[in-house]
Amino acid sequence: MFNFIEGGVTAPQGFTAQGVCASIKPSNTTKRDLALIYCDTLCSAAAVFTKNLVKSDTIAVTKKHLKNGKAQAVIVNSGNANTCNADGYDKAVRMCEIASDVLSVKAEDVIVASTGVIGEILPIEPIEKGAEAMRGKLTKDGGTNAAEAIMTTDTVKKEMAMTMTLGGKTVTVGGIAKGSGMIHINMGTMLSFVTTDAAVSAEMLECALREAVEDSYNMVSVDGDTSTNDTLAIMASGKAGNAEITEKNEDYRTFVEGLTEAFKMLAKKLAADGEGASKLLVCSVSGAKTKEDAVKVSKSIICSSLLKAAMFGADANWGRVLCAIGYSGADVDVKKVEVSFKSSKGIIDVCKNGAGIPFSEEKAKEILLENEINIIVTLGDGDAKAEAYGCDLTYDYVKINGDYRT
Amino acid sequence: MFNFIEGGVTAPQGFTAQGVCASIKPSNTTKRDLALIYCDTLCSAAAVFTKNLVKSDTIAVTKKHLKNGKAQAVIVNSGNANTCNADGYDKAVRMCEIASDVLSVKAEDVIVASTGVIGEILPIEPIEKGAEAMRGKLTKDGGTNAAEAIMTTDTVKKEMAMTMTLGGKTVTVGGIAKGSGMIHINMGTMLSFVTTDAAVSAEMLECALREAVEDSYNMVSVDGDTSTNDTLAIMASGKAGNAEITEKNEDYRTFVEGLTEAFKMLAKKLAADGEGASKLLVCSVSGAKTKEDAVKVSKSIICSSLLKAAMFGADANWGRVLCAIGYSGADVDVKKVEVSFKSSKGIIDVCKNGAGIPFSEEKAKEILLENEINIIVTLGDGDAKAEAYGCDLTYDYVKINGDYRT
Repeated sequence: MFNFIEGGVTAPQGFTAQGVCASIKPSNTTKRDLALIYCDTLCSAAAVFTKNLVKSDTIAVTKKHLKNGKAQAVIVNSGNANTCNADGYDKAVRMCEIASDVLSVKAEDVIVASTGVIGEILPIEPIEKGAEAMRGKLTKDGGTNAAEAIMTTDTVKKEMAMTMTLGGKTVTVGGIAKGSGMIHINMGTMLSFVTTDAAVSAEMLECALREAVEDSYNMVSVDGDTSTNDTLAIMASGKAGNAEITEKNEDYRTFVEGLTEAFKMLAKKLAADGEGASKLLVCSVSGAKTKEDAVKVSKSIICSSLLKAAMFGADANWGRVLCAIGYSGADVDVKKVEVSFKSSKGIIDVCKNGAGIPFSEEKAKEILLENEINIIVTLGDGDAKAEAYGCDLTYDYVKINGDYRT
Repeated sequence: MFNFIEGGVTAPQGFTAQGVCASIKPSNTTKRDLALIYCDTLCSAAAVFTKNLVKSDTIAVTKKHLKNGKAQAVIVNSGNANTCNADGYDKAVRMCEIASDVLSVKAEDVIVASTGVIGEILPIEPIEKGAEAMRGKLTKDGGTNAAEAIMTTDTVKKEMAMTMTLGGKTVTVGGIAKGSGMIHINMGTMLSFVTTDAAVSAEMLECALREAVEDSYNMVSVDGDTSTNDTLAIMASGKAGNAEITEKNEDYRTFVEGLTEAFKMLAKKLAADGEGASKLLVCSVSGAKTKEDAVKVSKSIICSSLLKAAMFGADANWGRVLCAIGYSGADVDVKKVEVSFKSSKGIIDVCKNGAGIPFSEEKAKEILLENEINIIVTLGDGDAKAEAYGCDLTYDYVKINGDYRT
């Protein structure tokens, strides 16, 4: 139904992008840190943002520009969050003007975002020069440079592209994301930009975005810190030629399902590349009384520092899973809980009826030494399920965050 | 008003204790792991426990024994949590019988607790032999052995003793505590036993305990994990000769204030010895609209992995303080927030009106290299305040928890 394909934010029809090194941090002379994404037609557009009260001023500007549900371009920098600065709003407006000039779009049709250190004044000159260097150079191939330009402590670029069929037409969705630390449930990303050539009204695009984010980005945690700059924006060019989605019909449901899978793919990439992470953790909870209980349990497990450290050590310490279930706040009968660990090396049951069962420590070690671990929890109390995404806690997380600013 | 003195759980009149190596973990042949605390008279007694749904069976037994508000002894082991075991309740009952026999007290006047690995069957024979070895050997000096016997990953014993004056009589309070990982807000300890020779009715002792715990143990977090075994028990022998506290009079208020200071002292010792910790962090928040807001902000800051890692690196990354305030859920005007860092080397202001101000990175580094750091936050919105206690996040936390069971 949904096919993942090669490519990223420029995979859908109508979109081009580019990324350059603008030296926004003077010490950075090689890494790309400024990106532009452009569509050759005005798009339906929507975005969701961090729930942190401390917000980057870029968010206020983007919100204003998306009031009419339309956008045509994105400008985004890494290396500086433009947050907690007295002149933050003016600088964010200026970034839109720069994109407007270089791309010949209206400034109010530009989405702006920033990521990096909080509380340092954003230098505007490197952004002017960097954007100028991209004039006339946005291409399909440039999407991967844009993916690189939004990285901070990320170690790999995160790109995704997929196709689906809507009313007989092939629709493409593409996206990039960044985020490694300061990632938590409820906007489990710092920045993500998703494009599609589906024809969708602005209103339905906003609804679809809010639905798809619930089981994907909102189920990721790296370290329990919710960032100040989180932005997930989507633009739909309509070039696929499908009948425009203007109500919650079958095409809408298909679109939401596809979008959910697309977001999950990017969300897992974020979790796997969490700061210092050596493993992706997926916690699948089933048999819960309600969806809410399943969500609470899976999030609580994926957020436990103790369990995260045990997974780093490939230690089948299921007691920490039980412990995290116990303080999750979910309505659970602990005497019915079952726990298994699974990876490409197999599956091992470690707890039944809320108590330990004999298992081979050797086999458990073999399973847990893999780099993608599935923690499977059955609550035996109903039909509801949820899945959360996270990563292990390692020496490198401490190292990266012990002196991030220097 | 309150004087801290040398000593621990045996400092108040009537109490003796001891601790031995019972080899509860067969691999442990030197560290004390079994403790007895005894009073030569029946005491008023009360306790508070973990809020985790997954609970050690020791808690059910202790709760039953404290129903009448009386206790005379404590038996406690480290090395095994006696949690998530099918025979956990019977083993906890058996531990009380063993203490009853050795100390000639009623089994139902014994408080029992366990700490260590979850989900391994508790071996009872070492406990029988260990308790037998203590028969007739409980002394005033033995209190420090008891403090050692409850340690798990703790690196130092935690003892405290203080005196206060109630109605012209000198009253002594003593205590021990253990806990290093799996420590979080709302019972920020794994185990703590506090004694006093104050005359207090069981009912008033319970009230005093619940009041005093709020600003002390309930404000500590090491890693956000709430343990399954947390127990804070208090016994009052009445030997100080003060007029028994049977209502919420002036003596009661003094007693609660003293108890709060006593608990805070132990709570800070727990935080400073958090798993892998190199620094004690104290977060003082003032100027909040309500006490609840102040509590939310101080807890949110002390629990931020990113801030904890920055403190380990002596990095004055105040943006992470703002970020944690922003997602705390408290009602805060971020434009009024002020932040300073303080230690024995001085104080430095880093943020005013929610934005950064110029400061000497060199001076900040000097301040943050100390092993007790005070993060001072002023919200400028009211009179309410709160203080939370925690520690930095270090390589050693990951190391300790990467393979705790082996």
